[in-house]
Amino acid sequence: MFRKILIANRGEIAVRIIRACREIGIATVAVYSEADREALHTQLADEAVCIGPAAATDSYLNMEQILSACIATKADAIHPGFGFLSENSRFVEMCEKCNITFIGPTAEMMDKMGNKSQARLTMIEAGVPVVPGTKEPVYDAKRGAAMAEDIGYPVMIKASSGGGGKGMRIAFGPDDFEENFQVAQLESVRGFGDNTMYIEKYVQEPRHIEFQIMADKFGNVVQFGERDCSIQRNHQKMIEESPSVALTPELRRQMGDAAVRAAKAVHYESAGTIEFLLDKEKNFYFMEMNTRIQVEHPVTEMVSGVDLMKEMIRVAAGEPLSVKQEDIHLQGHAMECRINAEDPAHHFRPCPGVIEAIHLPGGNGVRIDTAAYNGYEIPPFYDSMIAKVIVHGRTRQEAIDKMRSTLGELIIDGVTTNVDFQYEILDNEDFQAGEITTDFIPMHFNL
Amino acid sequence: MFRKILIANRGEIAVRIIRACREIGIATVAVYSEADREALHTQLADEAVCIGPAAATDSYLNMEQILSACIATKADAIHPGFGFLSENSRFVEMCEKCNITFIGPTAEMMDKMGNKSQARLTMIEAGVPVVPGTKEPVYDAKRGAAMAEDIGYPVMIKASSGGGGKGMRIAFGPDDFEENFQVAQLESVRGFGDNTMYIEKYVQEPRHIEFQIMADKFGNVVQFGERDCSIQRNHQKMIEESPSVALTPELRRQMGDAAVRAAKAVHYESAGTIEFLLDKEKNFYFMEMNTRIQVEHPVTEMVSGVDLMKEMIRVAAGEPLSVKQEDIHLQGHAMECRINAEDPAHHFRPCPGVIEAIHLPGGNGVRIDTAAYNGYEIPPFYDSMIAKVIVHGRTRQEAIDKMRSTLGELIIDGVTTNVDFQYEILDNEDFQAGEITTDFIPMHFNL
Repeated sequence: MFRKILIANRGEIAVRIIRACREIGIATVAVYSEADREALHTQLADEAVCIGPAAATDSYLNMEQILSACIATKADAIHPGFGFLSENSRFVEMCEKCNITFIGPTAEMMDKMGNKSQARLTMIEAGVPVVPGTKEPVYDAKRGAAMAEDIGYPVMIKASSGGGGKGMRIAFGPDDFEENFQVAQLESVRGFGDNTMYIEKYVQEPRHIEFQIMADKFGNVVQFGERDCSIQRNHQKMIEESPSVALTPELRRQMGDAAVRAAKAVHYESAGTIEFLLDKEKNFYFMEMNTRIQVEHPVTEMVSGVDLMKEMIRVAAGEPLSVKQEDIHLQGHAMECRINAEDPAHHFRPCPGVIEAIHLPGGNGVRIDTAAYNGYEIPPFYDSMIAKVIVHGRTRQEAIDKMRSTLGELIIDGVTTNVDFQYEILDNEDFQAGEITTDFIPMHFNL
Repeated sequence: MFRKILIANRGEIAVRIIRACREIGIATVAVYSEADREALHTQLADEAVCIGPAAATDSYLNMEQILSACIATKADAIHPGFGFLSENSRFVEMCEKCNITFIGPTAEMMDKMGNKSQARLTMIEAGVPVVPGTKEPVYDAKRGAAMAEDIGYPVMIKASSGGGGKGMRIAFGPDDFEENFQVAQLESVRGFGDNTMYIEKYVQEPRHIEFQIMADKFGNVVQFGERDCSIQRNHQKMIEESPSVALTPELRRQMGDAAVRAAKAVHYESAGTIEFLLDKEKNFYFMEMNTRIQVEHPVTEMVSGVDLMKEMIRVAAGEPLSVKQEDIHLQGHAMECRINAEDPAHHFRPCPGVIEAIHLPGGNGVRIDTAAYNGYEIPPFYDSMIAKVIVHGRTRQEAIDKMRSTLGELIIDGVTTNVDFQYEILDNEDFQAGEITTDFIPMHFNL
């Protein structure tokens, strides 16, 4: 097992990793930017190293600085969390060269899944259903338009290196194809330095259903059931739950098997998520694989009883999976609300500031993951998520009731948050009936 | 189902009950003393009624005031929590007369189990093992000494109405019998207005093993496995866990069956706990039944997945049990540390005061039940318990590691607490090996 892990991240996920390490008995090194001197992760870790100015490019994305901190503190592994360097295969290679274990997949696996066109081809070969679309990359709007005609409108134009909603545009017909293609491609070039695009059938009003998998170095792969993450704003998840009301046991088995096939196709190891779209006729299509731990992993931890973070660390250290597929039984219903410092009335614009008072609820079946505390100043440089409220009930209705009750006790003074907006979603009749698609927010709210 | 419940209690258990009501959709009425105007339960409930001065006898034990508040707010039920009026059968009768549902057993069941000599006889009839001892009440030291000779020293002298360690003394031989008898009897007269005593064989270095049961109005009784509450100071529990390492599956079944028999013997309904002593030879003896919800109920909620508080409310409303015995499977290992504002270095004397800063940990498998908040002033009039930290792991070792990590993050500034002492227990080798008896603290610590 590792003796010391450096956590190349910040916020609640850094705290989550520190907790997992502490429980296993591994020493921790936090890295922090100049803006995060007072951050909780900086305070909680056994050691903390400042790695540069506030801007992420100078600190949390500064690979050389992070590796230097790792060597200086004699840490033998790096946990990247999510975001930042978590899906950067060049960083993985640099870790390898420094003889430091990157807690995640190898650079090769990451590249195979990170390049969306390549991943698509791999999935087709593995017999995992994909959305009908271009088999090869597209670089040119005119050529793309011809392909869109073959696929049939509406189509989704996607940047191969894209993510988090960037480099994605929908075209509803030939008239708006070229403009959307060019905007998406420009975003991709600017955001990811890559002009590789592809085009897919646009699945209308789908659900976002994803399967959590975990794989060890011995070829064992298990899946922990699905999460329904259909409640999104600007392609960013707001509420996640498990199980999904849309899946029958048979469909769950089919999709779970497909998720395991997908992971095996790239000889995957570590924690990962296979994201699917589920259309109204219950056809499912591979969307992408996230080759890292995800924000919403606690939802699965609550229904499966398995600590995914510890499991991820253990398989990175060369241990076999501690659970077999037949031992994984989902119990009850879990739901997560992401609490962001943002203003839903103004396009969810981030609202950093000082948390003047915070009061976190607790009790039976309530879990809160946060790095916020009384008097904490949310810096304006990073993500606006300040807490994850996760609840577990015996049924979906019980989970919703518990979430409403829990949010009712939550106090965060000093900054604008999306808590009231989360309430409105929870109170919505369609949401309560489980009738949710990725268009839920734009269809129900006039923002 | 009830429309509105009045909570005749304070602190974290009042908050626990409010949360359960809110999740079911029942309105809540808090009652509070003048010292509890700013208490969390006063703030959280839908309505709040001041019932008198700080002293508990003038407020939380003031039956007339509480019933008046109930009638004035049109609440249709009262939840007593634990302590205060929770085991007062006269109060139960008064509720009945006012046509208000007391959420607990009837006065008759309470009396049958509340009188320890009577309960003992009932258990003998039901075939539940009891500690060898007097069959009839004892009022006189001389007569008691003769009985102690028959039973064989050491013996435990117990007040029939006693509880929480009051009115209990051990006599190791004829020389110290009379003095101990008189001290115990005096405590009982002063504390409970009752001079009825009885004498039992003193089981040396036992474990305290208790079984959680739940019974509905239709004669159904289930048990939720055991809690090992051997870690005690001055007969008050400090750490509770489930399952107990001392029980084999066969012994667990035997004791669970005995617990169900005990409850059925008094036609019990509501939540209850059957407390046993387990000696070194794995003989178990009925000690007493608590006819109420207990402080440590969350430990059982974490291993069973059943919300005992909601279940208790539902059976009081006349619903049948929502679970069958065969559906109850304990998973993993849960442990609770009671965080008290007290000074272990000075005989655990209470240390009320203002909580200048509080930071509660969270994360996977961590539950905190508390009514404390930043700036909260702990009044000197009531119990010193300020929070319950409950963790769940897959194994006992994982639960211990998680508890150590969690207590390491807990910040409570401004008052002296027992957190460091809890740490010392968790770090103790015998504790880690599961070698715990009710003498653990006096045997391991020089306080």
